[in-house]
Amino acid sequence: MIIDLRSDTVTKPTKGMKEAMFSAPVGDDVFGEDPTVSALEEKIASLFGMEAAIFCPSGTMTNQIAIRLHTRIQTEVICHKYSHIYLYEGGGIMSNSLASVKLLEGNLGKITASQVAASINPDDIHAPETTMVSLENTMNKGGGSIYELEEVIPIKKVCEEYGLKLHLDGARLFNALVETGDNPKEWGAQFDTISICLSKGLGCPVGSLLLGSKTDIKRARKVRKVMGGGMRQAGFLAAAGIYALDHQVARLKEDHARAKALGEMLLKKSFVPEVLPVATNIAIARLDGITPEFFLEKLGEKHIKAVKFGPDLVRFVTHHDFGDDHLEEFGKRIGEL
Amino acid sequence: MIIDLRSDTVTKPTKGMKEAMFSAPVGDDVFGEDPTVSALEEKIASLFGMEAAIFCPSGTMTNQIAIRLHTRIQTEVICHKYSHIYLYEGGGIMSNSLASVKLLEGNLGKITASQVAASINPDDIHAPETTMVSLENTMNKGGGSIYELEEVIPIKKVCEEYGLKLHLDGARLFNALVETGDNPKEWGAQFDTISICLSKGLGCPVGSLLLGSKTDIKRARKVRKVMGGGMRQAGFLAAAGIYALDHQVARLKEDHARAKALGEMLLKKSFVPEVLPVATNIAIARLDGITPEFFLEKLGEKHIKAVKFGPDLVRFVTHHDFGDDHLEEFGKRIGEL
Amino acid sequence: MIIDLRSDTVTKPTKGMKEAMFSAPVGDDVFGEDPTVSALEEKIASLFGMEAAIFCPSGTMTNQIAIRLHTRIQTEVICHKYSHIYLYEGGGIMSNSLASVKLLEGNLGKITASQVAASINPDDIHAPETTMVSLENTMNKGGGSIYELEEVIPIKKVCEEYGLKLHLDGARLFNALVETGDNPKEWGAQFDTISICLSKGLGCPVGSLLLGSKTDIKRARKVRKVMGGGMRQAGFLAAAGIYALDHQVARLKEDHARAKALGEMLLKKSFVPEVLPVATNIAIARLDGITPEFFLEKLGEKHIKAVKFGPDLVRFVTHHDFGDDHLEEFGKRIGEL
Amino acid sequence: MIIDLRSDTVTKPTKGMKEAMFSAPVGDDVFGEDPTVSALEEKIASLFGMEAAIFCPSGTMTNQIAIRLHTRIQTEVICHKYSHIYLYEGGGIMSNSLASVKLLEGNLGKITASQVAASINPDDIHAPETTMVSLENTMNKGGGSIYELEEVIPIKKVCEEYGLKLHLDGARLFNALVETGDNPKEWGAQFDTISICLSKGLGCPVGSLLLGSKTDIKRARKVRKVMGGGMRQAGFLAAAGIYALDHQVARLKEDHARAKALGEMLLKKSFVPEVLPVATNIAIARLDGITPEFFLEKLGEKHIKAVKFGPDLVRFVTHHDFGDDHLEEFGKRIGEL
Repeated sequence: MIIDLRSDTVTKPTKGMKEAMFSAPVGDDVFGEDPTVSALEEKIASLFGMEAAIFCPSGTMTNQIAIRLHTRIQTEVICHKYSHIYLYEGGGIMSNSLASVKLLEGNLGKITASQVAASINPDDIHAPETTMVSLENTMNKGGGSIYELEEVIPIKKVCEEYGLKLHLDGARLFNALVETGDNPKEWGAQFDTISICLSKGLGCPVGSLLLGSKTDIKRARKVRKVMGGGMRQAGFLAAAGIYALDHQVARLKEDHARAKALGEMLLKKSFVPEVLPVATNIAIARLDGITPEFFLEKLGEKHIKAVKFGPDLVRFVTHHDFGDDHLEEFGKRIGEL
Repeated sequence: MIIDLRSDTVTKPTKGMKEAMFSAPVGDDVFGEDPTVSALEEKIASLFGMEAAIFCPSGTMTNQIAIRLHTRIQTEVICHKYSHIYLYEGGGIMSNSLASVKLLEGNLGKITASQVAASINPDDIHAPETTMVSLENTMNKGGGSIYELEEVIPIKKVCEEYGLKLHLDGARLFNALVETGDNPKEWGAQFDTISICLSKGLGCPVGSLLLGSKTDIKRARKVRKVMGGGMRQAGFLAAAGIYALDHQVARLKEDHARAKALGEMLLKKSFVPEVLPVATNIAIARLDGITPEFFLEKLGEKHIKAVKFGPDLVRFVTHHDFGDDHLEEFGKRIGEL
Repeated sequence: MIIDLRSDTVTKPTKGMKEAMFSAPVGDDVFGEDPTVSALEEKIASLFGMEAAIFCPSGTMTNQIAIRLHTRIQTEVICHKYSHIYLYEGGGIMSNSLASVKLLEGNLGKITASQVAASINPDDIHAPETTMVSLENTMNKGGGSIYELEEVIPIKKVCEEYGLKLHLDGARLFNALVETGDNPKEWGAQFDTISICLSKGLGCPVGSLLLGSKTDIKRARKVRKVMGGGMRQAGFLAAAGIYALDHQVARLKEDHARAKALGEMLLKKSFVPEVLPVATNIAIARLDGITPEFFLEKLGEKHIKAVKFGPDLVRFVTHHDFGDDHLEEFGKRIGEL
Repeated sequence: MIIDLRSDTVTKPTKGMKEAMFSAPVGDDVFGEDPTVSALEEKIASLFGMEAAIFCPSGTMTNQIAIRLHTRIQTEVICHKYSHIYLYEGGGIMSNSLASVKLLEGNLGKITASQVAASINPDDIHAPETTMVSLENTMNKGGGSIYELEEVIPIKKVCEEYGLKLHLDGARLFNALVETGDNPKEWGAQFDTISICLSKGLGCPVGSLLLGSKTDIKRARKVRKVMGGGMRQAGFLAAAGIYALDHQVARLKEDHARAKALGEMLLKKSFVPEVLPVATNIAIARLDGITPEFFLEKLGEKHIKAVKFGPDLVRFVTHHDFGDDHLEEFGKRIGEL
């Protein structure tokens, strides 16, 4: 048995999800006629109290569309230096939108309202105009850390004061929501756009959604087209999203519990000296004296997969296809290292 | 019964195709681990005798990736002024690749080797450097017209002489191949990259493929990522592509026969004075004295759908879900106009 | 004696202009403190009744800044296919602004209001949004042809109706104005931005101006900075511009008379069968049976310089440093061919 | 008497320089026919032992051209987070070249070879490809700090090992060279391109040069054109550059001595608690308890100008027009604060 903890994207759809997919009514979504895609877009917009949503092939696309909506040539995006949009989207901020970046530092990948306020460029010909702020929740590179709503509200206020747009990369937003118990509408109220990924903890095969105002989502359809994200009978994929929202949100807490347990196992049973605080479904081990490559090789010998996440870091992500039996087995194999 | 002739993208998967999709083994294709995606990529590359292929959400993406591969900032693409890449991809040549366009004119949307040779910019600071030529086969806006291999070979020679890359937008390439009987490998040998669409005449719900050299397709994976086209368990979609290649290519000839018959019906039974030559599955009616909007409204009253395709043109596209019964019914309703 | 008719850019400053240049007070214009640059900007804005102007190193820069002001990623510019902004600025529309082009055809390089109206893209995801129209007056590639104000006014109306910006590439606008006698303010009233070149017929060594609203010119200062056009003690160059506006505008008529005479000489004394209508300071010879390269070589043997301007065209441009003696000598040498 | 220490760009040409400008032979440099521009380009290329050079309106343009030469869409530039190319060129790395940035930290604005080596992105679809490194010498935001050749050589080795291009923003390179006594050719040998500014300490009104290989400088001419930097009779400006290289390099040491003295005056005679190490002609005061705005206001009352350079920093730059009398007067006025 291979224990794959590289990412929560590796999951395969459950039987129920597959049945939902293959019984879904479909149509040509480029003509706006796929009923299942439309139903998913309406369902999630409504859940977050936002006006509209658009279904896209990936979370990179939903983030990159949001950046194009909120920037122009010669403008700047404020985000944490660990942001997915900066680190893992191929330089898309620049290559898709020609925008500059102001990279902030902060604990567990999070930034504060006062940092944002201090990072807005002056009205000066030498500097690009600051037009947007992007947050990430949960924060992947911060170890799955959670933003509290009270941290976000003052950032939103700064944005309103300075006329900045506020985007949320909520690839793993539901992982945060099941922990805090916040109403999604409270989050929808704070952001101009939110990106939600279906193919991570929610367990769908493909797809992400961008939520926003009707005007922004109409513009997003043009951006999606030019980026090549317009799909035809995408309802097969969207059906998985509807199923996940109905049946696979609450169980994210199980992933979190297993990630915490897994973190403790690493500390107790292996030579890992430190595990970053486990807030959700991500456990990041900090190594000492050995390289991530060596550790991953040793894990590989035990048929455990994880990923290097920095010069001395290794990341483990729990997910739908990692159950209690896998956890137990993980502990056993770790102990044998 | 609605008769939908707007596009061959409106088809829904057949029972056989859905079963193939439903039973496909899948994996995380961003990690390169979806066996069905890999199988489709290998199958089509092999069919055209090319080194590699990459699966993408749309034909716009495969075309746009090819353009990024073959251009740089301050370069120029030569294509027909009716090309899909120029007219219907949202200005992507410019907004995705910052390349300029040299727009040629020519019969039925086709260009010639001598036109290409005469359109290459000189080595002069005032002009962008010409780096690629793009053809389209069949040519949508040219009425589904077909390029003969003998027309392409001299264009390829010009490209080789001047160091230009040659791309084929083969969204409907199989419609041409079933008519000419050419071996796909003969076409693969002429182009640096070929884009093939699965969701048009081939009847798949979603997906296109870009074919090229190993080096180009490796680079294409980076471009696909930054454009947001990396999908996870995409094997469900790829399985439809494999099924279509195995079972739904030859039948394209039926679409062509029905398009020809449909064109004749328009001439005989309606007030359409002219239909462009019908080479494949597209029939374009040229109106006289009435507007496309008026004609489409009248058709709509008879539950027939088509699209405006110019100031005096209306396009009808036949496809898998338009059978002999639909054709007969079309003729009947047209006669009642 | 070399007779250089390649362009009106080859002129050298007159004695009066040089004295004006080297007695000019200067300062650091990046800090907005060069009094001569400011005086020139105010002088020309006032002349055209526009709010503000900005001094730039070249007409390519003023045009390219205007395009960036009036477009965004995924938008489209309408212009004649012979426009300088499309043909001779290195693909800058695309590489600087990522905008697409709709290239119109029309007599002597000019377009009409009805053409513009018919070329505006529909609100459809497949097409970039049309946001600007650019005219050129006089029209270089149209043989120095002149737009009448009555041709421009209906284009402006179309722009207002559809919310498009209207830019004028007025590199040689003064050549038109001295012929029509129009008040510059009448022209200033029709356009959102106007580009004026000082280093063509006006005889300055370096420099162009972009005129527009205060808001647009403020934004233009940011664009100029990022394009690298911010200069320090540029007053030396600006002084030439002030001098030219004061002393070298009216004499453009002399260039026009000489261009007409030169055109007639070509017809009478050489084997040139056709010269395009000479409206201002540009005479374009259409060859028959010989190539431009051959004709230019023969002219070169007589120490006459001109430029190839198409597959069968050669362009001659008259200017400040081409006087009556040069004209007479030109006629003599042409007769000897 | 106003004492202007905002920048070394505020200087006005000396009598000798103006005479050189006034008497320079000129021509149309867009046709490559300005003898003075060509002479300057050859002179500086030869001085640094590089193949070719190109004259541009500004140092922003020379830097931005270099970045376009050494990057493509979806690539990344490594530089210090205080680099002029990132902070003060309007986001041009992104908006001109669509490249991403890896921003390093390091003492006095300098980076090391090991930092560079650790910052090169892996060959992974999630990350832009690292293609260039940019250094700045002297380092403006580092307080005019100097790179030793021994610090640069290992960086060059890393670049060679990984196939990266190495650019030097040498806006104030001569300030470094007069201090270290290095032969310019030793520096020319380390870099693919070097940008040199004439309008800073060298005292010219306008202009910068980009040095590199013949191939790169030929490409640079195309980039300069599209950015709008092609100027016609630019020899008037280039003549100042030739004069400066002949007569105004050695005296930079005077600026350095005065900057050191000025820094000591700030410490002794004012309430400035700290001045960063003064290596060349820049003295940066770190304030405590007062804001830069307040300090600048107080200085303004004494007719002394400087610029804010961070939340608690004020920059003073010495230059050709700041002599011993100005220094003495500066000390006097500072003492009166």
